[in-house]
This record gives sequence, structure tokens and C-alpha cells, in this order.
Amino acid sequence: MTDSTIDWLSHRSDLRVLDCTIRDGGLMNNHHFDDRIVKAVYEACVAAGIDYMEIGYRGSRKDIKLGEHGCWKYCREDDIRRIVGDNATGLKLSIMADAGKCDYREDIPAKKDSVVDLVRVACYVHQVPLALDMINDANDKGYETTVNLMAVTTVGDSELDAALAMLAKSETQAIYVVDSFGALYTAQTRRLVQKYLQYAQSGGKAVGIHAHNNLQLAYANTIEAIVLGANYIDATMAGLGRGAGNCPMELLLGLLRDPQYHLRPVLKCVDETIEPLRQALGWGFDLPYMLTGLFNQHPRTAIAFNAQVEPGDIGAFFDSF
Amino acid sequence: MTDSTIDWLSHRSDLRVLDCTIRDGGLMNNHHFDDRIVKAVYEACVAAGIDYMEIGYRGSRKDIKLGEHGCWKYCREDDIRRIVGDNATGLKLSIMADAGKCDYREDIPAKKDSVVDLVRVACYVHQVPLALDMINDANDKGYETTVNLMAVTTVGDSELDAALAMLAKSETQAIYVVDSFGALYTAQTRRLVQKYLQYAQSGGKAVGIHAHNNLQLAYANTIEAIVLGANYIDATMAGLGRGAGNCPMELLLGLLRDPQYHLRPVLKCVDETIEPLRQALGWGFDLPYMLTGLFNQHPRTAIAFNAQVEPGDIGAFFDSF
Repeated sequence: MTDSTIDWLSHRSDLRVLDCTIRDGGLMNNHHFDDRIVKAVYEACVAAGIDYMEIGYRGSRKDIKLGEHGCWKYCREDDIRRIVGDNATGLKLSIMADAGKCDYREDIPAKKDSVVDLVRVACYVHQVPLALDMINDANDKGYETTVNLMAVTTVGDSELDAALAMLAKSETQAIYVVDSFGALYTAQTRRLVQKYLQYAQSGGKAVGIHAHNNLQLAYANTIEAIVLGANYIDATMAGLGRGAGNCPMELLLGLLRDPQYHLRPVLKCVDETIEPLRQALGWGFDLPYMLTGLFNQHPRTAIAFNAQVEPGDIGAFFDSF
Repeated sequence: MTDSTIDWLSHRSDLRVLDCTIRDGGLMNNHHFDDRIVKAVYEACVAAGIDYMEIGYRGSRKDIKLGEHGCWKYCREDDIRRIVGDNATGLKLSIMADAGKCDYREDIPAKKDSVVDLVRVACYVHQVPLALDMINDANDKGYETTVNLMAVTTVGDSELDAALAMLAKSETQAIYVVDSFGALYTAQTRRLVQKYLQYAQSGGKAVGIHAHNNLQLAYANTIEAIVLGANYIDATMAGLGRGAGNCPMELLLGLLRDPQYHLRPVLKCVDETIEPLRQALGWGFDLPYMLTGLFNQHPRTAIAFNAQVEPGDIGAFFDSF
């Protein structure tokens, strides 16, 4: 970082911080957050000067089992407005639409009828053509759009190049490096961010970073991406997110020197609202999540290991890879 | 890391892993570890192929209050031999001798009368002349020696240069970059390791890294140091250590590809022996430790904050810096 240290010690006017506490954290409790929790995160984001808050998924409501999932899996307009009213604040709101799990044509209204500002499309590499249609649909309806190309550590170089070339020609405003499995070392993050920047800049787009903490590198990888020029930065309060969790917002705002951002409301939210959920939700670094990260695997086996009634044998779990 | 990635994916025959779980962790419980715990760590280090285990401090026994501190503050030979016998293993043993807190001339016997292999001298920058005498003393008695120049984030550049020049001429075999306050960003670690390497290599010595996790960067900073060429690497089981703790051994051995090292015994030790201590000892990343790291302060105020009977106000603690 030597010389580029200047960049993050000074003001980076193009940088955007996105809080996805409720959206990513919802993967640990089937999206069953009380309104009180969601409102506390919203108010902390507003007070902290955060740019975007992702309040949940807009998932398909076909074939749902009533009560299985909390409302933040669907994010209907009245759910969101129950928390934010008309959101007369500087904070923009986003929802995540998963390729293949969202009836986007029907369930995403025209922007003029929504309090949402940004639609974040999430897809695996084989779903890029579908994601492009979702981006077009949301863009045509008047939303900002970004795209999260998930589980990038499982994608071969040539397929990734092809996907990035397609996304660079789309209407999306940012393409995210997404380390779904928390498997990236910082040197690997560096190479990916540099590659994404090449494609994104050719299409006038930004690059984002969404990190997971399986190897305790979520924050380090996020810093690396920022220094290289990534401008859309995901973080969550106390790192709340699936499995080992995400880059902690309290660390990110501790780093950024832009006077737009305020750490104190985040400290309060983490201390009073999020940490009390830790035992019930069970996110954060531990040995099973470390091992799925180390072996570049989806965290589902670690989640199952941790959900056992009797404590499992970590040695046997290690041997299973 | 681009090209140097090769270095850590391959075999680094000069690299030495040092476990300081009991020594650094002892700062969280006044060194009161049951023999069962110390023996479990020792056996895990042997089975894992770790190079050194630091079993405690050799502190002054003048003016001690009986029972205030556990025996690992003093590490008498019979304490150590109670755990390791004659240590007929490939694991070397080390003790830490703090400048100004150790009667080194009297309390460190000749090597032939000790099961200890390595004396690690720890000092602040103003104590370097004293540390040099301690290094000479231990070296003359037949021990390996290394030096931990503590709290380097509080030392000005010119004073650091002077200290490193003196240490590079001494008999010590390694000079450690020690981030006592957990305040280093990875870019800063990089600059320090490069500086230490210049001095150390001029004197035929190695560079070490001892990181703390206040900013969740202990492992990231350790990787950075390894890639640059640091060869003495401190880590602890589950990161157990003062305040936010250290670089976790389970992550370090997950990284290193040298077939000398084995992760499975470390997983077992962390799971069965160390994690059960977490609630009582209270080490690991949290908001108060994050704030002392962020403001480059000794963790003592955070330790006091956490020791309050009634939970403290994190906002007021933030305002106190």
C-alpha cells in the first residue's frame, strides 16, 4: 500500500458503504428479525452516514410455507415502509434479488411506487444471462442496479473473463467481487479486484467487495480492495452474516477518514442491538467455518455441524474434506 | 504477493512457528493455568510439528505475594519439567524474559542445567541497552536468543532505526516486529517488516512477527510478514492472548504447506482445551479492544472496561480517547 496509503487516509468521494446486516444476517435466522432490530440498524445507518442499507431479499412468494421465513426474505413495500416510512433521509435502500429465486418481473414495481433505490442482483456464474435480464428489468423500472457474482473462488479464469465481459456491457453500476465461502487470501483478492477493475472500467462501472470471515480475512480483504480502487464496500454490524459473517462495519468505519461517516452510532448498534443476538444466531469465526473456508466449500456443512444437539468431533469433520 | 505466492505455497525451510499460548494467555489469568491445560498445549505442539513452545515468563520472584500469580510467571525448571520431563521431542522450549522484570543473572541457569532452549528477551525501545545485556547473558549461558521490541507502533522512525542498528549487532538470532497494541494496518506491517529485514539481514539475523487482533488483522499481518520473508512466526491456540489475542495457530497451520506441520492436533487442542476457557478468560476481538487498537493505545483501559461488574457505555468509552 505504501504510496496508496494516502488514498484511504484522505477523502474518497466515490466510495459507497453498504450495510447488509439484515439481508446477510437473515440467512442465520430464516429472516426472522423483529421490527425493533431492523429499525435499530436503519437508524444506526442513517446516523452513521452510511450510503446504502440492504434490508432484505425480494424472494419469490410462490409455494411459500406460511411462517417458515420472516418478512425480510420477501421485502414487500409495506414491510419496508413499516420501518422507514418514506425514508426521508440521506440513506438509500437496497434489496437483493437472487437469480432463479425471484419473480422479478411481477414482484419489483416501478421505482416511482417503491421506497427502494437499488436492486442488487445476485447470481452464480452460470446465471449471468438471467442476471443480465434482471439488471435490464430493474434498470428499465428506474432503479440503480449492481450485481454480485457469487462464489467467485469456484469459477475458472476463462469463464470469469467471459462473465465479466458480459456484465461490463450491461446497465449495472457496479460489479462485486463476492467471496461467498470466505476462501480468499489477500493476494488472491488483489488479483481478482485488479481483473474486475479492468473489465468494469472499460464499461464505466465500479467494482465492489463482499467478503466473508472464515479465515479472519474479511476486513483485510476489504481494505485491500479499497486501496486498489474498489468503491462499493459491503459490511455488517458486528459482522453479522451467514456462517463466519462479513466484514464488520465498526472496523470499516474506523478505517475510513471521510467525515461523512460516524463510528459512534455503529458502536451503539453493535453493543445494544446486534451482540445480544450472537448466541441465538451463532454467526462468527469458528473452527468448522474456518475449515469450509480453507477448503473452499459452501458453509452448509459447517452450519449443519454447529446445529447438532451433541457437540461434533472437529477432527472427524476435518477428515471429511 | 502475486509472484511470491509461490513462497508460501511451497516449503520454507527457514520458517519457525512459535506457540506462545500459555505465555501470552497468562496475561489474562495471572498465569494460573492448570497443569492439564499446559500439558495439552505442549502435546498439541509436539504432535503438530510446531518448532517452539513458549511456556511462560521467567519473572522476578522478589517481593512476590504468594498465590497472586500462577507458576508460569516464573517458569522454574521444576515447573517446566513437571509438564515436559526431559522434553525428548522435536519441540524446543522457550521462556520470555521481560527487561526490568527479570533477575536474569541469577534466575537463568546455564543451558546444561535447563530444559529451556530459547530465551526470548522482551523490551521497550528505551530498554534496548538492558536487552542487549540480557541477550549477552543468555547467549553466554548457551541459549538461543531472540528479542521482542514491544509496542513498535509508539516508536518514532529515528529511534527505531537506532534500536535496530544496535540489535543487529547483537548475538540475538531474530528481531521481532511486535504489534503489542494491535494497531498495525497491513501496509504499515509491510513497511516495518521491510525495515527490520534490512537491519537484521545486515547482521545475519532473522525477522519475526508477533501480532495482536484488535483490528482483526493479526492473521493478515502475519501472512504479510511471512510473504515478505519474516521467518519467526508467533501464534497461539484459538488466538489466546492478552486482550484481543494473537494470530490463531489454527489459521497459521492452515496456511503453511510444509508437511512438517499438522493441523489436526491443533484443532483438537483448540476445541477441547482452549475454547472452554474463553468465557472465564475473556480474550478475543470486541469493541473496547478494537478502540484501543484503533487509537494505538495499550489495552489496559479496555481490560478495565470489560472487568466492570455493570456493563459499561461503549459510546462514553469511545469519547474517552
